[in-house]
Amino acid sequence: MKKKMKLASVLVACSMVSSFLQVQTSEVSAAEAYSPKHYTIPANSANVRWGNIGKGDAVLTVNSGDIVTVETVTHHSGDDYDRIIKGDAGIEDIFKWTAEEKNEPDRGPGVHILTGPIRVAGAEPGDVLEVRILDMSLRPSANPAYAGKTYGVNSAANWGYLYGDMIEEPKTREVVTIYEMDSNGSTDYAKALYNYRWTPQTDPDGKVHNTVDYPGVVVDHNTVVENHNIMKDVKVPVRLHFGTMGVAPSEADVVDSVPPSYFGGNVDDWRIGKGGTMYYPVAISGAYLSVGDPHAAMGDSELNGTAIETSLTGDIQIILHKKDSLNNKLKGLDFPLLETENEWVVQGFSYANYLKDLGTTAQKDIYNNSSVDKAMKDASYKTRRFLMNGMNLTEDEAYSLMSVSTDFGISQVVDANWGVHAVIAKSLFTDREPTLTSVRSAFEAVGAKLVWNSTKKSMIVQKGDNALTMTIGSDDASFNGKAFKLNKPLQVKDGKAMADAYFLNLYSSKLLDPQ
Amino acid sequence: MKKKMKLASVLVACSMVSSFLQVQTSEVSAAEAYSPKHYTIPANSANVRWGNIGKGDAVLTVNSGDIVTVETVTHHSGDDYDRIIKGDAGIEDIFKWTAEEKNEPDRGPGVHILTGPIRVAGAEPGDVLEVRILDMSLRPSANPAYAGKTYGVNSAANWGYLYGDMIEEPKTREVVTIYEMDSNGSTDYAKALYNYRWTPQTDPDGKVHNTVDYPGVVVDHNTVVENHNIMKDVKVPVRLHFGTMGVAPSEADVVDSVPPSYFGGNVDDWRIGKGGTMYYPVAISGAYLSVGDPHAAMGDSELNGTAIETSLTGDIQIILHKKDSLNNKLKGLDFPLLETENEWVVQGFSYANYLKDLGTTAQKDIYNNSSVDKAMKDASYKTRRFLMNGMNLTEDEAYSLMSVSTDFGISQVVDANWGVHAVIAKSLFTDREPTLTSVRSAFEAVGAKLVWNSTKKSMIVQKGDNALTMTIGSDDASFNGKAFKLNKPLQVKDGKAMADAYFLNLYSSKLLDPQ
Repeated sequence: MKKKMKLASVLVACSMVSSFLQVQTSEVSAAEAYSPKHYTIPANSANVRWGNIGKGDAVLTVNSGDIVTVETVTHHSGDDYDRIIKGDAGIEDIFKWTAEEKNEPDRGPGVHILTGPIRVAGAEPGDVLEVRILDMSLRPSANPAYAGKTYGVNSAANWGYLYGDMIEEPKTREVVTIYEMDSNGSTDYAKALYNYRWTPQTDPDGKVHNTVDYPGVVVDHNTVVENHNIMKDVKVPVRLHFGTMGVAPSEADVVDSVPPSYFGGNVDDWRIGKGGTMYYPVAISGAYLSVGDPHAAMGDSELNGTAIETSLTGDIQIILHKKDSLNNKLKGLDFPLLETENEWVVQGFSYANYLKDLGTTAQKDIYNNSSVDKAMKDASYKTRRFLMNGMNLTEDEAYSLMSVSTDFGISQVVDANWGVHAVIAKSLFTDREPTLTSVRSAFEAVGAKLVWNSTKKSMIVQKGDNALTMTIGSDDASFNGKAFKLNKPLQVKDGKAMADAYFLNLYSSKLLDPQ
Repeated sequence: MKKKMKLASVLVACSMVSSFLQVQTSEVSAAEAYSPKHYTIPANSANVRWGNIGKGDAVLTVNSGDIVTVETVTHHSGDDYDRIIKGDAGIEDIFKWTAEEKNEPDRGPGVHILTGPIRVAGAEPGDVLEVRILDMSLRPSANPAYAGKTYGVNSAANWGYLYGDMIEEPKTREVVTIYEMDSNGSTDYAKALYNYRWTPQTDPDGKVHNTVDYPGVVVDHNTVVENHNIMKDVKVPVRLHFGTMGVAPSEADVVDSVPPSYFGGNVDDWRIGKGGTMYYPVAISGAYLSVGDPHAAMGDSELNGTAIETSLTGDIQIILHKKDSLNNKLKGLDFPLLETENEWVVQGFSYANYLKDLGTTAQKDIYNNSSVDKAMKDASYKTRRFLMNGMNLTEDEAYSLMSVSTDFGISQVVDANWGVHAVIAKSLFTDREPTLTSVRSAFEAVGAKLVWNSTKKSMIVQKGDNALTMTIGSDDASFNGKAFKLNKPLQVKDGKAMADAYFLNLYSSKLLDPQ
């Protein structure tokens, strides 16, 4: 019923970027030299798939170093059509479903709306795909009645951890809670607006959904009772992140988007947000990166089945690390690894590779075989190996260090393949891997110009239309006029302004982005 | 073989404290008015028990509001006699064990050296005991060869999570790692000094210990190979805390110190450190608080069986909340609850009350029935109840809020009754429970004098010999000349200096402490 427009709908911005990225990603041979570009993938029915994180048809092909603005849409938008869908051409297009016509007819086997896949030129099995999340922002409501606001949905659904185990009757109820946020990020919290109990919903094909059993059903608010004035004076800290991001597995072409696995996918770790970098083992030629399941906030465990599901737009930079040039941390990587400013986060699951571990019926069986205990065991094995191989420790050293410093947390108990993550502090290794680097060297390497103001002790770093401003001794900084805080005040060492390598890498990417 | 000195060895310091605490702990009726005192319990064989967190004989009786300096000693001291025991009269006394004489002959059924118990006058079942950890410091090595240093032990022991599941042979090895720290806290990390594999050790009674199967065996270093230069350039962030603290349960008199439970005990959450406040349900008359199992650092899960086990001295204030005056957060409390500056932390276990849940053979059976899954379920139930009762939310509100904001982590998988904790951010409730309070009102209520310097915009708060200095707009502060950082700069509102209630409560206690 739907015509895919594919590449035609991807906006390509031309760009002029220095050869820095070839230098940084030295694993890309000279023969593969490229000119990094900035693309935008708008959210519409041509650019998303619904429920499948398998290979599929690419909506865009990028080269290593390219930056992509990715619009992502929550599959829970139908829970409040007026606030989330109405007036938003992209979301309306994705959710379009009448008795005559249904966009995105193939909703399954999973539930998430995934933007992409993005094919990465030159990516082959054994390589590692790095995805840096440079920025992330809320998608404003397009309904003028709700200008400046963004809405999110938390669905206490039938796959939730305490479903059927509630104290009050009816014990098996499903409850939808709508949260409200300021779209421009001027506040850092969400507030619950109202909730309602799920009632049977009839879809445009006439099928009745007694429970939340199919994605994209638009709730008829005449059938539900909205309870307003809930959670009075409660502010939920926002933690914008992609619930689902990953490459395509090699084991199957149609793959349920719900269970996370070695290829990433529905990892549901709220740390996968702005400033975070994911590393994925490439499983098929072209990698085929999908991004979606955007979340405004989530607690470790995602207890009732969902986060605050909302729509987000992210700027990501995609960097390909070829197999032969992988450093010790990435060599042999067989799980999604997260790097943040201060941490390495190892992602463990009940089944490290459920598609292989559970055989031909894996996509069904994974729903009945998970436990936190299995995920904990997997996370402990992976952490031991990361410390041994990646940090060059003996097994005895790694085992001791894990016990005295690594924090194991429960990522989620609702995504079929349950997850436990291990947080490893980078500060453990500061003396091994000095994080402070010269600001001038790092930014001049990407062709940026530094202007030093000796009176104010501040510097402006310029590249194209981008400008970064920082001041010695202060943690106040700004990028393109927008103020932000450095993790620590800008330091001086031997007469040179120094900042940590992670920050400099991240802002090198931002400076290179032609916007 | 050993004569208990009990109370005789507890040092009592006289004190003059205002009536503030009666006001603050209004649940203590006027008839029970008291004069808060400061006691010190030195670590020696008279003041500790080994392995039993049951009722026992009190070494001290305190009234609500009293402050106690508690010396605690690690049961792993014997792993490096020279650095940890030698020259330290208290530790030597506890560990004394020759063919002729053995102090602490009753080592069991658990393993921890516990200081106390401390009896709390007026405490009855149904009351809640609050324990504020005002301060905590490392116990320096008493061996002049190691002046200024403190040593800690990490034992990858037979009860560790990956015991028998190692990659390298022998798979069932036990490895002891000795860590070194600066005693004065001038550095915030520990460094591994050396490790060795456990070899059969013969105790003074002639019994051979092929594994780490009995506490207090002093290792003969002629039988082990010390591997130095390990974990080169790795710094482990210190997180001083009490691994074990709790009241005596009502179900039995002799109770294994290893499994944590509703009464607290071996909770092994590294957040139970300086500035932390624990709330325990009182189970027997007098409460009988035990403190020990001191740790310098630990990761959530305590993977290999132990933390960095070291000896610590803590200043704790004990406050009794009578049953009839409990606020909603403490009413009906049946688990150990932690409050920190920014968080409430709910402690869940595989069995919420294993002594009751597993019947007469509970103390044996608990070692074979735990799982992270059970602990996760328990933590989720307790968190739901805490949010419903303590924060006055409906079940639907609580369930949604947990999913979008509460972080569930794995406390430990090595203490027989495995633990999962739930971290609830106080920031969720800032608008309900304003944390900013007038500095002047709070400190004058405890009889302190405030001196304001309008030029420097700083204030000195004095009470007895104690002095707290703070400056408007700055996060630099000092207590008795020792600098520390406030969580946020001192604010002014309506012409009044304001700080958060948690900080003011904590420093009211410190100001009241006659030192």
